[in-house]
Amino acid sequence: MPTELAKVDFTELVPEPVPFLGQAAYIQLEFFESLAKAVATAPTLPSKEGLSAAAGVALRKHHALIAELRRLGVEPDDVMAPFAPATDRFRQASAGADWYELLLGIHVTAGMLDGYFSRLAEGLPVDLGARVRAILDEEGAALVLESELRAAIGADPALADRLALWGRSRVGDTLLIARSALRASEAPDRAGQQVEPVFTELIADHTRRMDALGLTA
Amino acid sequence: MPTELAKVDFTELVPEPVPFLGQAAYIQLEFFESLAKAVATAPTLPSKEGLSAAAGVALRKHHALIAELRRLGVEPDDVMAPFAPATDRFRQASAGADWYELLLGIHVTAGMLDGYFSRLAEGLPVDLGARVRAILDEEGAALVLESELRAAIGADPALADRLALWGRSRVGDTLLIARSALRASEAPDRAGQQVEPVFTELIADHTRRMDALGLTA
Repeated sequence: MPTELAKVDFTELVPEPVPFLGQAAYIQLEFFESLAKAVATAPTLPSKEGLSAAAGVALRKHHALIAELRRLGVEPDDVMAPFAPATDRFRQASAGADWYELLLGIHVTAGMLDGYFSRLAEGLPVDLGARVRAILDEEGAALVLESELRAAIGADPALADRLALWGRSRVGDTLLIARSALRASEAPDRAGQQVEPVFTELIADHTRRMDALGLTA
Repeated sequence: MPTELAKVDFTELVPEPVPFLGQAAYIQLEFFESLAKAVATAPTLPSKEGLSAAAGVALRKHHALIAELRRLGVEPDDVMAPFAPATDRFRQASAGADWYELLLGIHVTAGMLDGYFSRLAEGLPVDLGARVRAILDEEGAALVLESELRAAIGADPALADRLALWGRSRVGDTLLIARSALRASEAPDRAGQQVEPVFTELIADHTRRMDALGLTA
């Protein structure tokens, strides 16, 4: 079936553990900050409760990845620092114009990047890779974000068009972050050959996520 | 020794479990939001790491107190809602003009209120009281806040006067929150008789906390 893409074998992509963990840890800190902002600006207490639990999960992932860096004998702050400027800009650009765009921005970017880093972790040394995947695969914000967004769109169908556009607009920046993760840890020529199918998978995940909200990806 | 106050017996103050837990849970949510803001605006990654761990502790306390409300068969949101407006205003008033005032605002208010609610919990039914005290007594933000503030004052001694004033200014509002906790759960006449020594202890705690920072309380 020539139109079907071969399943990507992520084990052929071999990330350098230290920068990989540093970037993954810093990204979780950014998700925590975005979710904490969503908690602070939530319109109701039930929303605060669900989102604060999700913020707690992002925070656990951040601290667990930092602990893996310490286990490798490196200082996490030194490793994370180079990723801070681009990731900070990415978070600010994903924050959107209101609470709903903030939520969808987190849903789209965290959905793509958690899955991506978890699959990239298949290329880490086997014990480390298994621990990192367990950290990243913990059920986090997706359910509460999907439920909040579905309720909001149900209550105000006019939101759907605006959010569909907004969700689509976050894909490009997210792919740049994903691409930078390969640059940080691999020879560029090697990464270049294998990288396109990876991004095709990422976009397919994104489309499924938007479909679940009834939004055109 | 007539000038020494008798140790307050908190078991004579008998809070109503449901409003007590609702207010305590909502206050922890506010501390979480303030600490998350401190993380987001922290100038360095080591500061972010310490503060985010403290934010995680406040979040755990919030969710653990919510779980106690569910155990009592009530809906936490309904119980917390009446405390939201005053507590939101209290958080906003404690946020201060910059990052250092934000940190000291949390240190002063969380220091006084965590200790206060933990001691009030002595008057709860014994099993519940023990669980609530274990929740509230978890080591939280105090160490990281003290360490950040000492470093900041060491680096810029001119901060000391401004922060001393700021810390003092937060005491009145904190006592109002503490007083409202008794009103919410006790007959006013009973609370009125026993309440002054409680507040004297709170202020003594505050003075010790400011002393540890080298600030005049």
